[in-house]
Amino acid sequence: MTELRKDPVSERWVVVAPERLKRPTDFHSAQRAPRPDASCPFCAGREALTPPEVLAYRNGGAPDSPGWRVRVVPNKFPALQIDGSLARHTEGPFERVNGVGAHEVIIETPDHAKTLATMETREIEEVLHAFRKRISDLKRDERVRYVLIFKNHGHGSGATLEHAHSQLVALPVVPDVVREELDGAKRYRAAHRSCVFCDVIRHELGAGRRIVCEDGDVVALAPYASRFPFETWLLPQRHGSRFEQEPESVCAGVARAIKTVVQRLDAALESPPYNFVLHNAPPAEEVGDFFHWHIELMPRLARGGLESGTGLYINPVSPEEAANILRTVPV
Amino acid sequence: MTELRKDPVSERWVVVAPERLKRPTDFHSAQRAPRPDASCPFCAGREALTPPEVLAYRNGGAPDSPGWRVRVVPNKFPALQIDGSLARHTEGPFERVNGVGAHEVIIETPDHAKTLATMETREIEEVLHAFRKRISDLKRDERVRYVLIFKNHGHGSGATLEHAHSQLVALPVVPDVVREELDGAKRYRAAHRSCVFCDVIRHELGAGRRIVCEDGDVVALAPYASRFPFETWLLPQRHGSRFEQEPESVCAGVARAIKTVVQRLDAALESPPYNFVLHNAPPAEEVGDFFHWHIELMPRLARGGLESGTGLYINPVSPEEAANILRTVPV
Repeated sequence: MTELRKDPVSERWVVVAPERLKRPTDFHSAQRAPRPDASCPFCAGREALTPPEVLAYRNGGAPDSPGWRVRVVPNKFPALQIDGSLARHTEGPFERVNGVGAHEVIIETPDHAKTLATMETREIEEVLHAFRKRISDLKRDERVRYVLIFKNHGHGSGATLEHAHSQLVALPVVPDVVREELDGAKRYRAAHRSCVFCDVIRHELGAGRRIVCEDGDVVALAPYASRFPFETWLLPQRHGSRFEQEPESVCAGVARAIKTVVQRLDAALESPPYNFVLHNAPPAEEVGDFFHWHIELMPRLARGGLESGTGLYINPVSPEEAANILRTVPV
Repeated sequence: MTELRKDPVSERWVVVAPERLKRPTDFHSAQRAPRPDASCPFCAGREALTPPEVLAYRNGGAPDSPGWRVRVVPNKFPALQIDGSLARHTEGPFERVNGVGAHEVIIETPDHAKTLATMETREIEEVLHAFRKRISDLKRDERVRYVLIFKNHGHGSGATLEHAHSQLVALPVVPDVVREELDGAKRYRAAHRSCVFCDVIRHELGAGRRIVCEDGDVVALAPYASRFPFETWLLPQRHGSRFEQEPESVCAGVARAIKTVVQRLDAALESPPYNFVLHNAPPAEEVGDFFHWHIELMPRLARGGLESGTGLYINPVSPEEAANILRTVPV
């Protein structure tokens, strides 16, 4: 029997229908490893092909020259621009604001051949430090209401360049997915007097069967109402609403968890494409007691497109099965 | 300058960033026309390859034999089953219900070579009659809280079979996309004492520049906060909340509008893959005064995957430009 499961934060219903896995069209997603590309603008030595860097962690070398370990540059095709006023306009029943904000690329490594699965943990940690630094800098601009950080990895994920990178979009509004999560967490807080994410973590560590890995700082789990096969969330075990304010030890734990999860996805699913998104507290909102930052990682496996605009997700792999595979796969 | 636009129903923000259209990776979506396929289970003469039909409009012939014009069959790999009780279960902070419901396929034509662009208007009208009949039948089952009807067309849309078909999923819950739309329309009704969709239609017919086509019964328009390039919504001009209760004349208007829009998309964009979703009132809810049924049609053009789980849509084509192209393209 299939089930409909409700996410306790968003109240989104998901159909978990393991029977559908029998379909031959499910799961063909093997990715090739990154191959050398003489035109890649993110490789060391090609710094002139990107806009000037806004942040870099370096062993040496001048800005926009080799010697960096992590490099942050404006997106060459930005969706938002940093200049301009935040004027609101209306037209009949409609409302718009100017596209003020920022759109940046975090180049995670100078080495074209590396991925989060093959980078050292301390290298991933530096990527996370770059996230924190850019969030902290951008949120000083009071026009910025949210800083969205996400990663598209591999063909089929939306990535247009193969070289390991993440993206950052600073927005003058709070995206509705985040707004709904805040609303849901607030409702839960009002009803139960606790953080829904903390309650989920406590329950899941006790139940065990949806845990992918955990180390005291960070837990990686397959969410109860997983929308996608092998969807995995990474959460700090100690309550915190702002990623940029976590201590270094938590950052190290997140880096370890990311590496572990991506290595196991690669081993279990032939290096699938994936997206991840950091869900963080909006800078100007007091949500510290009920919102719990986390990372949502979604492999992009071949599947029917039911969710395209329908809002209905049909997941052919139960989170219990996915977590079990990821816990036990030899790496 | 890019803009952020807010959808007046869902309050979802969308980035409209026409500059990004310069990217070379945008828009490679040419579809081949359907090709004869000796193994297609939806072609006339292969009725034995599907489960027995639950509805057919026929020129003659026995059930599950040739002679049909439109045929509705259970999905061979159903996500939900019609048998079983709607028991609710809880586990710690989580909640689930049994996967009770229905999952059906509406085979739109016996002819493998036809699409909504090449079918006659009266043939499309019969497909819509099949939608109405199945909604009316299924909503008599009080376990059914919503009947979702959608179509995946072409490679990249999620369709696994090429032969023209739509799908129906009868659900024991209301999908959150619909719930949010109902909530938004209700908020608007409380604030403005009118239907948000009626106000949008009135404004758009006056403004003109986002209208794709209109004929007194039905209007097709590019929504102000379009998430996707060439996204098009079809709405009845006279307020109505339930598709299955519209008079035949409106059905005929919807069929004409679907054919017109799909023909123009095919002409403008080399027959792109697309999804459409019918947004209808939930059977058991009193939403008649503020909810307005409509069809949302979304071409699936190659694009960056920013929206994958981030909830942030970046649309490289303004709805004004899209509507202008669709209004003027020679068919």
